[in-house]
Amino acid sequence: MANITKKVSWSSRTDEFGQAGEGTPLLNGSEQPRPSRQLSGRGSLFQIGRLSTVDLEEEITSDEDSLRGRPKEIPHNEKLLSLKYESLDYDNIENQLFLEEERRMSYMGFRCLEISRWVICGLIGLLTGLIACFIDIGVEQLARIKFHVVKENIEKFTEVGGLSISLILWAVLNSAIVMMGAIIVAFFEPIAAGSGIPQIKCFLNGVKIPRVVRLKTLVVKVCGVICSVVGGLAVGKEGPMIHSGAVVAAGVSQGRSTSLKRDFKIFEYFRRDTEKRDFVSAGAAAGVSAAFGAPVGGVLFSLEEGASFWNQMLTWRIFFASMISTFTLNFFLSIYHNNPGDLSNPGLINFGRFEGDSVTYNLYEIPLFIAMGAIGGLLGALFNVLNYWLTIFRIRYVHRPCLQVMEAMLVAAVTATVSFTMIYFSNDCQPLGPDHTEEYPLQLFCADGEYNSMATTFFNLPERSVRSLFHNQPGTYNPLTLGLFTLTYFFLACWTYGLAVSAGVFIPSLLIGAAWGRLCGIMLATITSNGSIWADPGKYALIGAAAQLGGIVRMTLSLTVIMVEATGNVTYGLPIMLVLMTAKIVGDYFEEGLYDIHIKLQSVPFLHWEAPATSHWLMAREVMSSPVTCLNRIEKVGTIVDILSNTSTNHNGFPVVVQVSDNDEPAKLCGLILRSQLIVLLKHKVFVELARSRLTHRKLQLKDFRDAYPRFPPIQSIHVSQDERECMMDLTEFMNPTPYTVPQETSLPRVFKLFRALGLRHLVVVDDVNRVVGLVTRKDLARYHLGKHGLEELQLAQT
Amino acid sequence: MANITKKVSWSSRTDEFGQAGEGTPLLNGSEQPRPSRQLSGRGSLFQIGRLSTVDLEEEITSDEDSLRGRPKEIPHNEKLLSLKYESLDYDNIENQLFLEEERRMSYMGFRCLEISRWVICGLIGLLTGLIACFIDIGVEQLARIKFHVVKENIEKFTEVGGLSISLILWAVLNSAIVMMGAIIVAFFEPIAAGSGIPQIKCFLNGVKIPRVVRLKTLVVKVCGVICSVVGGLAVGKEGPMIHSGAVVAAGVSQGRSTSLKRDFKIFEYFRRDTEKRDFVSAGAAAGVSAAFGAPVGGVLFSLEEGASFWNQMLTWRIFFASMISTFTLNFFLSIYHNNPGDLSNPGLINFGRFEGDSVTYNLYEIPLFIAMGAIGGLLGALFNVLNYWLTIFRIRYVHRPCLQVMEAMLVAAVTATVSFTMIYFSNDCQPLGPDHTEEYPLQLFCADGEYNSMATTFFNLPERSVRSLFHNQPGTYNPLTLGLFTLTYFFLACWTYGLAVSAGVFIPSLLIGAAWGRLCGIMLATITSNGSIWADPGKYALIGAAAQLGGIVRMTLSLTVIMVEATGNVTYGLPIMLVLMTAKIVGDYFEEGLYDIHIKLQSVPFLHWEAPATSHWLMAREVMSSPVTCLNRIEKVGTIVDILSNTSTNHNGFPVVVQVSDNDEPAKLCGLILRSQLIVLLKHKVFVELARSRLTHRKLQLKDFRDAYPRFPPIQSIHVSQDERECMMDLTEFMNPTPYTVPQETSLPRVFKLFRALGLRHLVVVDDVNRVVGLVTRKDLARYHLGKHGLEELQLAQT
Repeated sequence: MANITKKVSWSSRTDEFGQAGEGTPLLNGSEQPRPSRQLSGRGSLFQIGRLSTVDLEEEITSDEDSLRGRPKEIPHNEKLLSLKYESLDYDNIENQLFLEEERRMSYMGFRCLEISRWVICGLIGLLTGLIACFIDIGVEQLARIKFHVVKENIEKFTEVGGLSISLILWAVLNSAIVMMGAIIVAFFEPIAAGSGIPQIKCFLNGVKIPRVVRLKTLVVKVCGVICSVVGGLAVGKEGPMIHSGAVVAAGVSQGRSTSLKRDFKIFEYFRRDTEKRDFVSAGAAAGVSAAFGAPVGGVLFSLEEGASFWNQMLTWRIFFASMISTFTLNFFLSIYHNNPGDLSNPGLINFGRFEGDSVTYNLYEIPLFIAMGAIGGLLGALFNVLNYWLTIFRIRYVHRPCLQVMEAMLVAAVTATVSFTMIYFSNDCQPLGPDHTEEYPLQLFCADGEYNSMATTFFNLPERSVRSLFHNQPGTYNPLTLGLFTLTYFFLACWTYGLAVSAGVFIPSLLIGAAWGRLCGIMLATITSNGSIWADPGKYALIGAAAQLGGIVRMTLSLTVIMVEATGNVTYGLPIMLVLMTAKIVGDYFEEGLYDIHIKLQSVPFLHWEAPATSHWLMAREVMSSPVTCLNRIEKVGTIVDILSNTSTNHNGFPVVVQVSDNDEPAKLCGLILRSQLIVLLKHKVFVELARSRLTHRKLQLKDFRDAYPRFPPIQSIHVSQDERECMMDLTEFMNPTPYTVPQETSLPRVFKLFRALGLRHLVVVDDVNRVVGLVTRKDLARYHLGKHGLEELQLAQT
Repeated sequence: MANITKKVSWSSRTDEFGQAGEGTPLLNGSEQPRPSRQLSGRGSLFQIGRLSTVDLEEEITSDEDSLRGRPKEIPHNEKLLSLKYESLDYDNIENQLFLEEERRMSYMGFRCLEISRWVICGLIGLLTGLIACFIDIGVEQLARIKFHVVKENIEKFTEVGGLSISLILWAVLNSAIVMMGAIIVAFFEPIAAGSGIPQIKCFLNGVKIPRVVRLKTLVVKVCGVICSVVGGLAVGKEGPMIHSGAVVAAGVSQGRSTSLKRDFKIFEYFRRDTEKRDFVSAGAAAGVSAAFGAPVGGVLFSLEEGASFWNQMLTWRIFFASMISTFTLNFFLSIYHNNPGDLSNPGLINFGRFEGDSVTYNLYEIPLFIAMGAIGGLLGALFNVLNYWLTIFRIRYVHRPCLQVMEAMLVAAVTATVSFTMIYFSNDCQPLGPDHTEEYPLQLFCADGEYNSMATTFFNLPERSVRSLFHNQPGTYNPLTLGLFTLTYFFLACWTYGLAVSAGVFIPSLLIGAAWGRLCGIMLATITSNGSIWADPGKYALIGAAAQLGGIVRMTLSLTVIMVEATGNVTYGLPIMLVLMTAKIVGDYFEEGLYDIHIKLQSVPFLHWEAPATSHWLMAREVMSSPVTCLNRIEKVGTIVDILSNTSTNHNGFPVVVQVSDNDEPAKLCGLILRSQLIVLLKHKVFVELARSRLTHRKLQLKDFRDAYPRFPPIQSIHVSQDERECMMDLTEFMNPTPYTVPQETSLPRVFKLFRALGLRHLVVVDDVNRVVGLVTRKDLARYHLGKHGLEELQLAQT
């Protein structure tokens, strides 16, 4: 039997419903003292505990302990699950109001909704494509201005020998640009930092990350990414596109902007988590599609990261959004490039076309590719480990915004200095091509008619450098240059990821991989005398790029398709797959993927695809949290206000129970109601006065709930008078009358499967006569994971 | 409110659990007379009915009615659901035995299982690739022999003017080859007819199609497809690969062959529906991958058709199988073509490489592509309608095997005759290429140094014709030839699909589409004077092929990826997507996809992705079947035998109930047990004698259930003596103690979602104190579908 390490946090536990200071039952069946909060109005508030007797004395003691101990900040550590994250409701709340609305709707009504969904997906694609276009053009224009400023100055000062002035100018310029990007991120919207992919992964997984899909985040993200790229950091603009697409989707689908306080009164039907998630999937796919010109890859990315239940219609809509997105980008870029209608720029990055004889590979090359995959896995793991330590360091010491801005500026300055030094010391002069295809040729210390290839590599936008590494003629790059470049860029990229700037890790990874891959190709060509097959180092650059990227982010299926679509050639499909799988297997041996590391470091309760393999001996009874705060179907307003105001519990879902007969039998489960619904009910004062007729109030409609979505006011903002506290509230119409339930004996994998497949937020555990005995939430399931020594249980903590 | 057409079949209803002659409650709440069978041992057999009182008198009357009426064969009609299909159990039966085994297993054990899964997927890929290789080489060798025989004879007889003899020789030869293929299919394994894709779709959906994944089916399929293709029918060999891959997967994963009576004692863990389905998904993907050289397309096909719950690890394994499959085919074909290591034949069909300038398209071409998509949708719908009528005709009049063989021979002879006539009357002579690239040039009535292009089109293997249409130089084909060819081939292909031969519809569709697409291209080039963009009719052939195929089969996402992978070029991704979506929208307006038509005509209870949109007003209470035959946890053997032997009910799943207290309270649900489990229990005589200690019998293990899987013996083959009938059977260990349940008020979409997402077979409906009130099975959900006039209910009938 697997060994389990119990680490129960006794600090305040404020999860989806759990009681503060509540423990987790030990696995051997004995009971921990189970603190339980006794609220006023005991008769109307059901504290349905476990069947075992619980010592009340001990309860209160440990309860007080936990109160005294709070807030007990626990040092940051990845063996924690934070309680600050709420879940999303991916399960429709099918209460009476909802069913009435659905039943009123005609078949044509559903058709119209379906058409609206397609229209929204079209809009998502269009806007995402336009944003990609804006970023691309913005970066290109600013980079051109910067290049000319720097070039002029370098040329001027190189003549007079004042190289240090050039260096300082360059470094200061870069730092200043990066500073702007870092300031808006660090001070205005910290969630816009990084690529946003971990956040979107969490969102699609069902975790509510605050502010992740707001308009402000989008604006900061877009401006931030332009600054980072123009500032010369080792970053790409592709990752942020995924986040941008998701924000666009979340905004467009709701038909209003809460930030701008504009409500267009459209798409009101879609104002709930279920629909929003679907659109956010489409937005993320559209983002991938615009970034890499890979619509199928985008769909697969969304599915790999987000989907729990594969729905054909949804997949098509996602596909449609991706298609429109890449098409929009392509079309507008073709106009920008004065060649309207020439659709040859499907994505922000274009790997160039692999054609002709160079695309073939042979059977005996496959072991070489696999070896390169293993190298990619190793280097990727190294990258991730270094970045992990760095992130830990940042969490501990660099958490103030001004420090973060300073770090970003420092990195920008160091990047500029390192680049400059390497350009200075490298003598890798290449003759200018006859057609001057190089866009940014820097002569520097080279003879006339030549350019410095190192300077080109550093100065180019990274996308262009990747393409050069893939396609330039053999002999364009000096092996030493490439080696040095790989080394420095590796550390620079690693340092850069996690800064308080908006930036992606795809392009730096590809660039590092392409560099060492090309190096491999050159070495192979040197070793073997017959150069017919080995002659093309570009092929090895592609494989290296795939290996490095796979080693860092550990995606396989979607990444293969993205690479295939970006290269515009399926011949390399098979080797790329092999390389990505090898990189993943090798990398996973040492360390998780970069995004997973960052998710873990944020202590997000992330649900994986399956329950841990050895968890069949855990049952719902042991996993669930109990006792549960239940409400009566007709409940006193005062009780509800007290429960909601209890900051130490902060429950989000409450089973609703009803007394079947007048005798002492315990109450049966008859529904489930959410905190957000109760808040709306309190706000609209849907009360019934005791022993009198119903108070006259407007009948509440779904619209009232939708208007409040998704930013429900806190309970503190709702004033309830003492008289009103004595009123009753009838929850019948508003609760979900058919919550999913499981018996106590259900095994963890079975509970997990139900919870994950249906995207639940609360799963009620009942006994054999339908009495509530516990509640399972995301944190109860995300707690268990397979560590090196078998099944482990993560701590739950307030972070 | 939506209007519902009630069509309740009163013939014997033998579904997953339902009672014979049981009606469906009307929606207005009134009750139909509800026949109920009173079995012996009433005390121990719970007939938990609805809360309403049912008139027993009426019950028995209508029961007798239904008995007298049986077997009431209902004329074939697509508004029926057949009761002859069982469901697969995609939900693990987590009984005590299973949990004990899982708990005994260490983490290493699970790792080994995981590795086994990868090994099996590798094997599936390898074997599928080898089968594809065998088919390809077999077809090519036989076709070459046939070509030489025919050519020699035609040349001989053309000289002496005896053309009719040539014709007869050709027609007889073709008919004879097709006859062989048809005989093995019609007499030995009728399930091997057609492409097998509808059957695999059903299997992945959860419907048990008898004999669909047996070794015999595979052998017949492979031999059959070789005969059909060599026999010159308008068929392809790609569709059958999907079925073949699925059979390989089902066989390999079980580690034994029931047909060959060989048990290798390996992979015993995988002997259940859940695991088998996963492997069959991988097999189907490997089949697609081998057929089209499209591993990603294969994965998407499997997901689009089969997956309900997207699982990342599973997807990777499917991907792995696909990869190995295409690689194996590629490798062995390269050896066969005396060019080992040259991996340029990834699939059975190779569209050739679209490269260079011809691959570009321009913005103003997109409306043209969309128009072609619409034409494809129209032609596809026409094809499907014609084939639908033909299939109805066949079901009514051509159901005897010898008739089926004769029809196949007739089609072969007609195909030969039509081809011959067209070749005879067409004067489309083309000069032989300088390098004699045409493999089968027939001179016929052409001058020396020329060949008859019509003859080539008819004589070539269809795959090669498709490639010629895509890639031959402009001017190779005469427009009139193409037009005539499209017309005849369209009707031939339509007639051929549904014959009792193994054959696919992909290649004929592509061929028809490529022909009219090329025709469009030629016409465009004629109309417009500047021929720079329009000059390449091959591009239009590709678009036409996609449109026609999309119009017939109505796949979108997976088909796009398959086409992209088969053309080896992603540039056309966007137009192909647009074309496929247009074809689907236009086609769906008139008629369903070809596979869906055939599934419907078989009256298979196929579950779609979502419940019909307007079904929110249906509740579990109205959908479920009731009363339910329940068993006691400790049940009399005689009762069980009687229930299982009752041929009029033929239940497959039984809720197990337990009396909580001694008073009159109704029994509570405590588990669910399957017919197959009861059969195994009876076979091993796991009885407890009344008032005595347990009989000594070996403790039953999971192995006993696995050994019997999947061909459980019928109840009639198990002898139970009169003494044994008096014994009791304890079901506690074997039943699933935690079946999924829903309350009666749950809406149909909610029930559907739970059922579909978890791949259930039985869903118990309980009241608020956990008493069984009904059971929902696949047929109860598949019954409801959206017709032209709103929600319709299909009849359930014994067919």
